[in-house]
Amino acid sequence: MTRDPRFDVLFEPVKIGPVTAPNRFYQVPHCNGMGHQYPSSMAEMRGVKAEGGWGVVNTEECEISHTSELSGAIESRLWDDSDIPVLAKMVDKIHAYGGLAGIEPAHLGAGAANNYSREIPMGPAARPIDLYEPVQARRMDKADIKAFRKMHVDAAIRAKSAGFDIVYVYAGHDMTTLMHFLQADRNDRTDEYGGSLKNRVRLLREVIEDTKDAIGDTCAIAVRLAVDEMLGKGGISSDGEGREIIEMLAELPDLWDVNVSGWENDSATSRFSDEGYQTDYIRFVKQITTKPVVGVGRFTSPDTMVSLVNKGVLDLIGAARPSIADPFLPKKIEEGRVEDIRECIGCNICVSADFLSHPMRCTQNPTMGEEWRKGWHPERIAPKTADETVLIVGAGPAGLEAARALGQRGYDVTLAEATDTIGGRVHTESQLPGLSQWRRVADYREYQISQMANVAVYLNSPLTADQVLEFEADHIVLSTGSEWDTTGIGRSNRRAILGHDAGTVMGVDAICAGEKPTGPVVIFDDDYYYMAGLIAEKLRREGHDVTYVTPTPDVSHWTHNTMEQSRIQTRLMKLGVKITPLHTLTRISSNHVDLTCIYTDAVHQIPCATLIPVAMRNPREDLFSALQERATSLTRIGDCYAPGTIAAAVYGGHRYARELGEPAVTGVPFRRELPLLADD
Amino acid sequence: MTRDPRFDVLFEPVKIGPVTAPNRFYQVPHCNGMGHQYPSSMAEMRGVKAEGGWGVVNTEECEISHTSELSGAIESRLWDDSDIPVLAKMVDKIHAYGGLAGIEPAHLGAGAANNYSREIPMGPAARPIDLYEPVQARRMDKADIKAFRKMHVDAAIRAKSAGFDIVYVYAGHDMTTLMHFLQADRNDRTDEYGGSLKNRVRLLREVIEDTKDAIGDTCAIAVRLAVDEMLGKGGISSDGEGREIIEMLAELPDLWDVNVSGWENDSATSRFSDEGYQTDYIRFVKQITTKPVVGVGRFTSPDTMVSLVNKGVLDLIGAARPSIADPFLPKKIEEGRVEDIRECIGCNICVSADFLSHPMRCTQNPTMGEEWRKGWHPERIAPKTADETVLIVGAGPAGLEAARALGQRGYDVTLAEATDTIGGRVHTESQLPGLSQWRRVADYREYQISQMANVAVYLNSPLTADQVLEFEADHIVLSTGSEWDTTGIGRSNRRAILGHDAGTVMGVDAICAGEKPTGPVVIFDDDYYYMAGLIAEKLRREGHDVTYVTPTPDVSHWTHNTMEQSRIQTRLMKLGVKITPLHTLTRISSNHVDLTCIYTDAVHQIPCATLIPVAMRNPREDLFSALQERATSLTRIGDCYAPGTIAAAVYGGHRYARELGEPAVTGVPFRRELPLLADD
Repeated sequence: MTRDPRFDVLFEPVKIGPVTAPNRFYQVPHCNGMGHQYPSSMAEMRGVKAEGGWGVVNTEECEISHTSELSGAIESRLWDDSDIPVLAKMVDKIHAYGGLAGIEPAHLGAGAANNYSREIPMGPAARPIDLYEPVQARRMDKADIKAFRKMHVDAAIRAKSAGFDIVYVYAGHDMTTLMHFLQADRNDRTDEYGGSLKNRVRLLREVIEDTKDAIGDTCAIAVRLAVDEMLGKGGISSDGEGREIIEMLAELPDLWDVNVSGWENDSATSRFSDEGYQTDYIRFVKQITTKPVVGVGRFTSPDTMVSLVNKGVLDLIGAARPSIADPFLPKKIEEGRVEDIRECIGCNICVSADFLSHPMRCTQNPTMGEEWRKGWHPERIAPKTADETVLIVGAGPAGLEAARALGQRGYDVTLAEATDTIGGRVHTESQLPGLSQWRRVADYREYQISQMANVAVYLNSPLTADQVLEFEADHIVLSTGSEWDTTGIGRSNRRAILGHDAGTVMGVDAICAGEKPTGPVVIFDDDYYYMAGLIAEKLRREGHDVTYVTPTPDVSHWTHNTMEQSRIQTRLMKLGVKITPLHTLTRISSNHVDLTCIYTDAVHQIPCATLIPVAMRNPREDLFSALQERATSLTRIGDCYAPGTIAAAVYGGHRYARELGEPAVTGVPFRRELPLLADD
Repeated sequence: MTRDPRFDVLFEPVKIGPVTAPNRFYQVPHCNGMGHQYPSSMAEMRGVKAEGGWGVVNTEECEISHTSELSGAIESRLWDDSDIPVLAKMVDKIHAYGGLAGIEPAHLGAGAANNYSREIPMGPAARPIDLYEPVQARRMDKADIKAFRKMHVDAAIRAKSAGFDIVYVYAGHDMTTLMHFLQADRNDRTDEYGGSLKNRVRLLREVIEDTKDAIGDTCAIAVRLAVDEMLGKGGISSDGEGREIIEMLAELPDLWDVNVSGWENDSATSRFSDEGYQTDYIRFVKQITTKPVVGVGRFTSPDTMVSLVNKGVLDLIGAARPSIADPFLPKKIEEGRVEDIRECIGCNICVSADFLSHPMRCTQNPTMGEEWRKGWHPERIAPKTADETVLIVGAGPAGLEAARALGQRGYDVTLAEATDTIGGRVHTESQLPGLSQWRRVADYREYQISQMANVAVYLNSPLTADQVLEFEADHIVLSTGSEWDTTGIGRSNRRAILGHDAGTVMGVDAICAGEKPTGPVVIFDDDYYYMAGLIAEKLRREGHDVTYVTPTPDVSHWTHNTMEQSRIQTRLMKLGVKITPLHTLTRISSNHVDLTCIYTDAVHQIPCATLIPVAMRNPREDLFSALQERATSLTRIGDCYAPGTIAAAVYGGHRYARELGEPAVTGVPFRRELPLLADD
């Protein structure tokens, strides 16, 4: 296949100060939960992106000093020279594929608690730190500012010695000291670093100049700046101080990486934003500077990318999440295989890893984080080890991915789906409000499978145990999914809720299938991820009287980890959903339910004609039970093995495909990264 | 000094199966935030406890398999043989001082999300895991149970080869698979592992027997069992199934380590429990078994310990937190220096480290976690490097600890306190409801200083800058503390709240000083730790009409990390404090305040005659400003440098004392534990 000529512009080199990016594909800095703790995993993950055609590949934020560190979040570190080898390893992996390697040195200031180093944070003012930790930052004095500038210079010199081509100065995401100095409501200083915007910009200007002086001869200096805080006139905005800052510093850096702030605005999910959602905020930048500009917007469409370049909005197509979902996105465009792109669904399961301190995962890309420790490559997989056939029952995310990856290995695969539609839960959930892009999990795989002669898909094919066995496949894989429980059993109620069988309960699956509840609806969220919030939104939009009850203190509690919680609760409130947090649901009657306060055990009743418990799912086990004693090679994957995230289902399917026919591993099935043990 | 003979019983050896503890001081397993990630720090910390006389020193919970792991929490690991050296290092450090080393192998099952390994958790039933993660455990089948038993045996054999003397079987804290099988409301199995208590106990019995068979010849087998879940008849209780389990297994293990469950009940804070709070729940155990019994209860009083042994309640005095606050507690009793014990204040700042994934800290013991990385010993400190004098202004926690540690080094120290009382904020806060034990931070140091001829303390001695200079000390240390801000500036309001100067605002300091508010009181908690909750409790108990407003979803939000949140909110609700979460306070008027919803920005008003903002503190800087240009050696420590926790203040004072006269460190001032970087 050959590239569509209209995409040629994306493969033009771009000069960035003293270095040249080989194309316009630019992986902006992004956290990944590997950083300093899993350095070989991090390096390999970045290297795979360079292999996949990203012309520039950056680190995540890289702490430049032990006096400003984010533990337990796992970021990169350049505290001292001992950190250089880790980052040099990453650089080498990127250079091996002709990419430029960038680094984002960061001083978090009042954005870090320093729980590990126990140093006192510092910032423009003596204020509490942004995290909820009981820590206040101290106000930097002139000696601190001098030391701060030296930290940046030291980090830049270390970065250069590690081999980096691009070195950032980072004033974005409401997260770094350099941004905190810019902000009028944080910076109450009365010296030359506070007051007027010119004064507030002073430190940023100095650090850019210092960095250029130190390493600008061979390294490009990039500035990552939040040009809009989405606070209107109360903050930095693209028609206010954001623009003025760019005007003041227009030609100083070699590259502008511009976005909106805070992180939850920069990395908005598809439920709440469309591709290119930042463009209106950042399009002004190129009118002011001649230097190349990079911006993001969850871009996965090459047409959109081309349009942005041709219209003079961006010089480089920035991406974090799309490069995670598909490290080979650029190569696929280059090779005329646009249909092969595994598009980011914008679910932010990747982001959760940063909050929860573990290596990043991705719903679309099951190899993310496994590149080094399991040797999994996002595009390559070992050929089959035997001429064997596999029957997969159920075309949800697990079954689809197993079929796709087994097909790629060359196995003879049959995928039988009981319904008339590919996708399973992905199909169902993508019809809920805002989740249409989640359909991409099925779409990508459906297309891939359609191109494989060795994979056959049968719709409308429910199978009995006998039919499965009659198929005489060498291997049987069950991916039959799960059903939402209707008894109320879950974290809060370890036994079925009294009255669950009284006829007023309607399950999540029934709602998703289009059944309509009657009377006042109560949704009991004992699940804490997105489903209860979506059901509430859907039913309220359909005009129902909806009350949302949960033992957690806010709705869709776990979505704090995907940075959606605030948006979800705001939406539900604005729609008129009644919210009763901090209560469990303990009894169901014909026209009301009992709610019990998690603190005082006080019980009160609210009207309820239809109760929808969102608490747990039951794996569909019928087929497994019927086959368990009869089949020789029988494996469950995805939700029918254990209900979990879509990411976990895709991972389960992929893992099955990777491991089929390979020697069984005893012990830990991945390489570990253990700390060096000192002699004393 | 010689030991009081009435304490002799504490120093009797205790036979535990095939091994013998040298005395009755028993450090039960406890998390520490070092574990597998900071192994040398962990090993040294444990070794120091053995040096301090703890006859038995245990690990924290030690994950026995990658299929059950708690990342990002940092626990010990025995996933495979590569983990043995880490634990062997700890064992060697303990053996060097004649202690027994114990290990607590743990399979967390439905208590772990396996975010790092990505394995599916398993447990007795197919249920959501306990953490709020979107993960469900699968139900263990017979093959899983067999594998589970083998994991325990493998871990036991590895533990033996690492040199451990005591190996646990862990069924406590509502946290492990073995406990989950015991619980009727989790275990809904219909096979021989579910149903009757005998069936539910089966797996625990098998694992104890397996472990004994594997290593019982040379290692003692301990069982840690929660005998009461504090759920009444709804759960395991000491007059119900807890007792029955002990009866069933009475003579099977070599040691019973019994406590209450969950962890928040086992490690209750002093605000909500007194020393020995578990005794009534565990005293029955020794009536049933002839095997030695260990229990905990935040014991720091040797009289209490002796009484427990003499009354036949316990054979071994279990301690986690008291051993953290004073690793040398046993030695101090042994040497007749009971007054030197640094008693745990029961604040649970240690526990927070486990939730926040960093090495443990301790309010009382600033050397906790620093033993290896900084070479700080809890009892020893380098002698002074010069015959110099130090003037310390302010006898709060930072000033007291600096004076004590400098005094220990031999410096000539003067400690000047403006008020008539030692303790600063510790004195003030210990008068708030439930915090009386926090006074121990001052009491310990006051006594230590009183024994030092080279430290002089002057009360009622406010000093001007001139007076400070006239003192002609070689070094001036300011520890003048901080004052609660009254403008409302904080995390939510980066500018002063409109109307803050209208006369209705009363500061936290005024309330602590005994001033009385008038009319309806509103407390605005933008601090999120304990203070706002305490002020609310105090004022409500005094009869005021109190409304508690906070942008967070629940009261005293950060106290989730000290496991107090539920108790605090319950107490406030039962006292009749009105709680308005998820709102900021945006305007103060003469008889009301404006509250703004953090989601919708909707504003509503509530009556308010007195507003108490609890948002941030301002360091007291007057003396520093006046001296800054005039003094040669001038240092701020504690809250006057940056307001923080009491633990941070004590640490700041200690650090100053450690570093005075020592060569300045450039770069990272502690040894790091970096991961091994693979070649590929």
